[in-house]
Amino acid sequence: MNENAPIVGTTAIIGLGLIGGSMALALKDKQLTAHIIGTDLSREHEQKALELGLVDEILPLKEAVQKADLVVLAVPVNACVQLLPIVLDEVDKQVVIDTGSTKTNLVNAVVHHSKRSRYLPTHPMWGTEFSGPEAAVHGAFANKAVVFCNREESDRDVLDKVDELYQTIGMHIIHMQSEAHDEHVAYISHISHITSFALANTVLEKEKKEEAIFALASAGFESTVRLAKSPSTMWVPILLQNRENVLDVLNEHITQLEKFRDSLESKDQKRLGELMQNANKIGRVLNK
Amino acid sequence: MNENAPIVGTTAIIGLGLIGGSMALALKDKQLTAHIIGTDLSREHEQKALELGLVDEILPLKEAVQKADLVVLAVPVNACVQLLPIVLDEVDKQVVIDTGSTKTNLVNAVVHHSKRSRYLPTHPMWGTEFSGPEAAVHGAFANKAVVFCNREESDRDVLDKVDELYQTIGMHIIHMQSEAHDEHVAYISHISHITSFALANTVLEKEKKEEAIFALASAGFESTVRLAKSPSTMWVPILLQNRENVLDVLNEHITQLEKFRDSLESKDQKRLGELMQNANKIGRVLNK
Repeated sequence: MNENAPIVGTTAIIGLGLIGGSMALALKDKQLTAHIIGTDLSREHEQKALELGLVDEILPLKEAVQKADLVVLAVPVNACVQLLPIVLDEVDKQVVIDTGSTKTNLVNAVVHHSKRSRYLPTHPMWGTEFSGPEAAVHGAFANKAVVFCNREESDRDVLDKVDELYQTIGMHIIHMQSEAHDEHVAYISHISHITSFALANTVLEKEKKEEAIFALASAGFESTVRLAKSPSTMWVPILLQNRENVLDVLNEHITQLEKFRDSLESKDQKRLGELMQNANKIGRVLNK
Repeated sequence: MNENAPIVGTTAIIGLGLIGGSMALALKDKQLTAHIIGTDLSREHEQKALELGLVDEILPLKEAVQKADLVVLAVPVNACVQLLPIVLDEVDKQVVIDTGSTKTNLVNAVVHHSKRSRYLPTHPMWGTEFSGPEAAVHGAFANKAVVFCNREESDRDVLDKVDELYQTIGMHIIHMQSEAHDEHVAYISHISHITSFALANTVLEKEKKEEAIFALASAGFESTVRLAKSPSTMWVPILLQNRENVLDVLNEHITQLEKFRDSLESKDQKRLGELMQNANKIGRVLNK
């Protein structure tokens, strides 16, 4: 075998949006696959993905899986729970991964499937507020983290192959159980989206009366509301699938905001300073 | 007079931190001033600002004001309320501006001062989460907005000079009354900082038990908590001076978060989607 041959013959990418499209680009850029088949519920997305050269061919779901060596599920997490068992039904020796933001529901949906061990749940920790095949970018995943869940439930060759793929596109791999993953992402990702959505709604509530404030929007504001542009088709399913963890974090976050409110109401300068100085610690933690 | 001569002979910058330092760089880079005198409560900041070439000379406050043609107050808003009357006491024909994030208190503090008309309240809408003279950067203010408050209370030559200065460093000027300014920045800037501080505290509350989550911190999280690194010495005074507006916005923001919580608790998929789709409108508004 040619040493420079791609490690995957044919890849099937199911869902040709931001993540599926960017994954296609990463696999091509690193010459990790010889051929990419795409499939999407939207004919428009399929056509666009072909035009943009994200995929080489469009085929129906089952045919795409049958012809593939690697299957990448990159659809909203509610669709993924439906599709994963259907995909595994078609699988023989294929390697199957998904890229979703919640994992426990997904793992539970295929726990008794005879082909469960051909599947590895993965969550590349990258995204933007944009969607669709046009949102796909080169080099999206480089230097970011990817979480592998429940590695002991996947075949050794599946683990090795997926490990090599993600390492080659420049990601560092973290192993977790699906329950721990879902709890952690509630803190690190899902709550950021809720606060951003809620902040946008707060300002838009005001904007009904005043236009001028938008002339003032500065970088600080833009960075905190950026995520509010994220699509509801992706985020409603994520929040519902991770509902209990997200509610825990959201309640804690409201409590933290109420501490700021109480300190301001009572003009408690000292307490307000302490709340901010505690928050400052996030800088040290993030730079670790 | 030489056509290429700086429009300001000597500038005194009071407060040599992020904003004062970046303003010094902007004035020098655009050759708007021939000489910059710096003054700061911290001897360390003064020394550092000299070393970094932000200022040409260090002098005590009153002497700096007396020797200057332009005085820039770039200190925390509580210090500014104290310093502005003292500065105006020393003023003859000087032009005085401040760069603070709240304006009504400041304007009220000098409303009866005989030199009030030599002062123009300005708020360049730029900042980062960093502080001190080392945080100063070139080109900080280019393509950002600057708010001028209560222009009718300043002398014509003051307005013309400050207009030319800010236009030359690339800012677009917005005129507002100080009360309207303070209300708008509560929505566009102050609430973003509170949510960011509170989000950091939410995650840090959890982090006492778990370290692993920080390995997962992604770009979305970083952008929403970035402002949480901001210094309390700057932000406690801002929030206290703008307390009533900030409390209005904070209460609205908590209400908006509670809508997300209620929808999640009742698994109301439709309502959750509507909340997000409403938030998505912020994208169109920001891109106007």
